[in-house]
Amino acid sequence: MSKPSLPQGTRDFTAEILRKRSYILNTIRAVFESYGYEPLETPAMEQLDTLMGKYGEEGDRLIFKILNNGLHEPANHQKAAEGFQKVLAGKNSTQLTERALKYDLTIPFARFVAMNHGKLTFPYKRYQIQPVWRADRPQKGRYREFTQCDADVVGSNSLLNEADLANIYHAVFTKLNLPEYCLRINSRKLLAALAETCGGSHLLTPISIAIDKLDKIGWEKVQAELMQRGLTEPQLSFVEQYLSIAGNNFDCIEKARLLFKGHPTATEGLTELSAVLQHTSNCNICIDFTLARGLNYYTGVIFEVSPPPDVRIGSIGGGGRYDNLTALFGVPDLTGVGISFGVDRIYDVLEELNRFPEGLSQGTRVLFMHMGPETIQVVYQHLQELRNRSIACEIYPDAIKLDKQFKYADKKKIPFAVLIGSQEMAQQQCVVKNLRTGEQQAIPLISLASFIDEQD
Amino acid sequence: MSKPSLPQGTRDFTAEILRKRSYILNTIRAVFESYGYEPLETPAMEQLDTLMGKYGEEGDRLIFKILNNGLHEPANHQKAAEGFQKVLAGKNSTQLTERALKYDLTIPFARFVAMNHGKLTFPYKRYQIQPVWRADRPQKGRYREFTQCDADVVGSNSLLNEADLANIYHAVFTKLNLPEYCLRINSRKLLAALAETCGGSHLLTPISIAIDKLDKIGWEKVQAELMQRGLTEPQLSFVEQYLSIAGNNFDCIEKARLLFKGHPTATEGLTELSAVLQHTSNCNICIDFTLARGLNYYTGVIFEVSPPPDVRIGSIGGGGRYDNLTALFGVPDLTGVGISFGVDRIYDVLEELNRFPEGLSQGTRVLFMHMGPETIQVVYQHLQELRNRSIACEIYPDAIKLDKQFKYADKKKIPFAVLIGSQEMAQQQCVVKNLRTGEQQAIPLISLASFIDEQD
Repeated sequence: MSKPSLPQGTRDFTAEILRKRSYILNTIRAVFESYGYEPLETPAMEQLDTLMGKYGEEGDRLIFKILNNGLHEPANHQKAAEGFQKVLAGKNSTQLTERALKYDLTIPFARFVAMNHGKLTFPYKRYQIQPVWRADRPQKGRYREFTQCDADVVGSNSLLNEADLANIYHAVFTKLNLPEYCLRINSRKLLAALAETCGGSHLLTPISIAIDKLDKIGWEKVQAELMQRGLTEPQLSFVEQYLSIAGNNFDCIEKARLLFKGHPTATEGLTELSAVLQHTSNCNICIDFTLARGLNYYTGVIFEVSPPPDVRIGSIGGGGRYDNLTALFGVPDLTGVGISFGVDRIYDVLEELNRFPEGLSQGTRVLFMHMGPETIQVVYQHLQELRNRSIACEIYPDAIKLDKQFKYADKKKIPFAVLIGSQEMAQQQCVVKNLRTGEQQAIPLISLASFIDEQD
Repeated sequence: MSKPSLPQGTRDFTAEILRKRSYILNTIRAVFESYGYEPLETPAMEQLDTLMGKYGEEGDRLIFKILNNGLHEPANHQKAAEGFQKVLAGKNSTQLTERALKYDLTIPFARFVAMNHGKLTFPYKRYQIQPVWRADRPQKGRYREFTQCDADVVGSNSLLNEADLANIYHAVFTKLNLPEYCLRINSRKLLAALAETCGGSHLLTPISIAIDKLDKIGWEKVQAELMQRGLTEPQLSFVEQYLSIAGNNFDCIEKARLLFKGHPTATEGLTELSAVLQHTSNCNICIDFTLARGLNYYTGVIFEVSPPPDVRIGSIGGGGRYDNLTALFGVPDLTGVGISFGVDRIYDVLEELNRFPEGLSQGTRVLFMHMGPETIQVVYQHLQELRNRSIACEIYPDAIKLDKQFKYADKKKIPFAVLIGSQEMAQQQCVVKNLRTGEQQAIPLISLASFIDEQD
């Protein structure tokens, strides 16, 4: 048998990592629930048709497709061969593959809403925390299987939803001990107004894409890119003025109002931003007119969360309002707004800044030493008593030398050992050893559980 | 766009179902943790090599294989075509597919242990709760994507592990309000002794497989099957005597001792069963010599859990001791023992017997009514106060007619509505309406949160 390995870009998660991940995910989950968002889980597999064509050409290529079963049956050979030729030509074929692994949580959510919209109560608010798969080239911090964590509401135009989502970010990052997070906010309507003012609405996507790269490539190169798109000097100067707006949130809105001089789309966008700010004064929220979010489907307010300033990690969350997502599946006129949390990056930020709470990775709390057959019955009985109180305990499974048993406790970072030998048993006592300090003391067996409960 | 659908045999889980599933999984998880088992998660995808050949021919066919990406690139055409021919011939080909979805949690666990055995502390106790995928023909209660829930310990021969696992079953089913569960226990060593006594150890598998079907097909047919395998009349009579042993656990062991007359393998098995019984007197454990568990890899004590007698659902858990699981991956001499919980079936049992606790599916607890722009600022402030206390609240996002807002609360089974109109605001009050009883009362705004906290 050859040495086993993991597929490229995938990971095993051991206890220490899982406990930290659970801390992050449980924190987010509890906040989602307190805002009235309901859980949803969709299958790992979707019909290939559901996914194809939703993520652009590059996305289509990065979807993991599942080979149909039963190709080896002679009755299927002819069809399979036709399907194979299509795949070679870069097309899909249900003869070879009908199913695929989900690429994100948004399209499966849209598929779910479209399939169930007669039964759902709108506005429908759901959160979803599940893995997704992408055949991206693996690299540091980029995996082929990773967890997405989304909250969306569909069927409501109200900006109170945006306010709620901003407050969710605040509640989560405060609870995660990352109060220096910064929630940047903008509206795609300002970018639309910018395009309309500088050449026409067909320029919205190229302008958004160019602005999206501002912090990476700088204004000079963004300007060059926009010139290639045909923007004139005055238009470029207008874009530059827009991108240079700074100050506190209300200053920014005021300056933008002056710049756009009552342009209706811009006015709408600014009014929306003001409305969101009205209910988010406690959040670290700042208007950032350079925020564009590359994704085409955003149409209103957009969000992006930056980690604390010292950390060289990209955004740890983002989202925005979109229209008509379910129209892809034949259900029109359902507007929505959603956010997501970048779980892997949040993990890295907390690790880098040492912000995980202490004691998170504590597994077993007490190791009962195995002192031989004379006392095992009594030992097991007290072990069970502690377990029934939800204190994580183990008994070393064999009566080997005590130093080996202590070594096991040491490797597993178990903080307490309990020893019940024949002598202790005769006196209805046990010895509790604190394995961090080395201290030990005799405790009546009857008070063992409460004694352990009181230790920190 | 065609109407979207789900792949056959897969499910969307909505909030109501997920909350019940979480209740089951969290109960099991908490018990695993209290017994010192650590969490582990492995990727959905494994190398195809890791999985193939581990589940028999039928299993190999039911593994979902993932198509390699990049087949459409001309450089890959030749190889892809060769790979395709192999697949048509019923073989695997890394040219077409290198990865597959995991089929169970046991082989990925063995792969993990083999890859990390230098770093792990033995005995290594892990639990794992994750989905697996099988291309089985979907039918009632059988899905192509379903959750497995396993606990295993490797690297220890001690029967205290078996005792722990039996106690885990007891703790879980007691907490799940299924105290009438029955944990049946046997040892494969008795079946081995049976085979040795009745024709030779080569008969272990056929005898086990035949006995496994006893409750489905009855003794007559089992006897016929064993006759075909060459068992003589006296041998059949011996098997029948073995299978007829009944009584309390200690009677059973005594009768089996008399039957096997000191046969060393049988004596070993019976001594092991006695040792497990020593620490499980509180469990609903009963020796069942007809228990065989089809899987070849079990070598010692085996378990199976039956639901309460009135429920027509198969076993809701099972497991046993196995040797050398990691030898498949080049790491010999690691014995192990494990159990699993049948999550979907446990769900069905709890549903059928109406044993889920009340209030489990409670989502949003309070709906703040949207009474218009005059009061929204105050309403939102009190909404946030409740959310900060982890009370799940929503505000209806638009100031539409109140009866429509009440209808939303009704559909979502929200138990309380809070109304703050201009008049209430002027008096620093709100009206809390209990939507189940219809009662309503005025509460000072300052005491709203504690008032809601006190309601059940």
